[in-house]
Amino acid sequence: MELFEKEISRKYVFEGKIFKVRCDKVTLPDGKKADREIIEHSGGSGVLAVTENDEILLVKQYRRPYDEITYEIPAGKLNPGENPKEAALRELSEETGYEAEGLVDFGKIYPSPGYLSEIVYIFFAKNVKKTGDAHTDDDEYLSLVKMPVEEARKLIEEGRHFYDAKTIIAITKYLLMKDKLN
Amino acid sequence: MELFEKEISRKYVFEGKIFKVRCDKVTLPDGKKADREIIEHSGGSGVLAVTENDEILLVKQYRRPYDEITYEIPAGKLNPGENPKEAALRELSEETGYEAEGLVDFGKIYPSPGYLSEIVYIFFAKNVKKTGDAHTDDDEYLSLVKMPVEEARKLIEEGRHFYDAKTIIAITKYLLMKDKLN
Repeated sequence: MELFEKEISRKYVFEGKIFKVRCDKVTLPDGKKADREIIEHSGGSGVLAVTENDEILLVKQYRRPYDEITYEIPAGKLNPGENPKEAALRELSEETGYEAEGLVDFGKIYPSPGYLSEIVYIFFAKNVKKTGDAHTDDDEYLSLVKMPVEEARKLIEEGRHFYDAKTIIAITKYLLMKDKLN
Repeated sequence: MELFEKEISRKYVFEGKIFKVRCDKVTLPDGKKADREIIEHSGGSGVLAVTENDEILLVKQYRRPYDEITYEIPAGKLNPGENPKEAALRELSEETGYEAEGLVDFGKIYPSPGYLSEIVYIFFAKNVKKTGDAHTDDDEYLSLVKMPVEEARKLIEEGRHFYDAKTIIAITKYLLMKDKLN
């Protein structure tokens, strides 16, 4: 079955600092026309960092869309010209003060592929070490939490505490692949 | 550490069919002010449906933000007044023609919590059965693919083929909890 849509036009309706919004007109496989609302986002990186004691590093932070505190792996937007690996190491250092000797590629994810263009690159680092203090952006408030991996497993199986998609993916992939990664 | 931000104002800058965009002004924990760009989305449900032969049902579809074909679990937006479980069963039926006897709650996820308010509710259904044909919306083109669970495990471990966040979470949770779920 033919699935591709062909672009007729695109029009930007909002250009912000974090994302842009455009409205596309497309031709469907049957020749009919449809409208598509798209959010353009430049993407980010996150890293599941595990200490020698099999604890994961989490950042506790306020997330305005939910008016809630969330627990997430260290992560952030790619700076212009920065590759995903560099961004993951930078965010780890900025948000936690820890450093990794190397990163394992855990693949890319599409957070909400129906209308959002964001790609998040996920990495894994073992035996991370504290080498300094966290040093975040001016408008970024967060605090570091360490959690034993087995506690994270329990909370994820129960569907509690972790809701952020990249964080759940990073932890579940680690749990599935632990024997191969250590 | 105080992490919460207080709202000063909110202003809608785009109101579409799929999402709305607003620009908020907030007070940070230190009293300074900051701008926040937020996308409001009404949320959705997805279901990992597994057949008697331990195959998972996937929908193959075109995703305009990436101009690519993706492989995702059956999923869609909640209709007004519909609860997440009803939406999951409806989407399963519409997108695949299969029905589930019951659903296991796999928890909720926040696809991109920094700026997006969407919540996706994920469910699991075993021994799903084909009871009819798929019957999708007018502007929705998709095709059904069945994949053995062990093939999905391999692809996810290699970081290939699956990029959609809800799909990766549903499959990895199933793989982690398989003994408890069967």
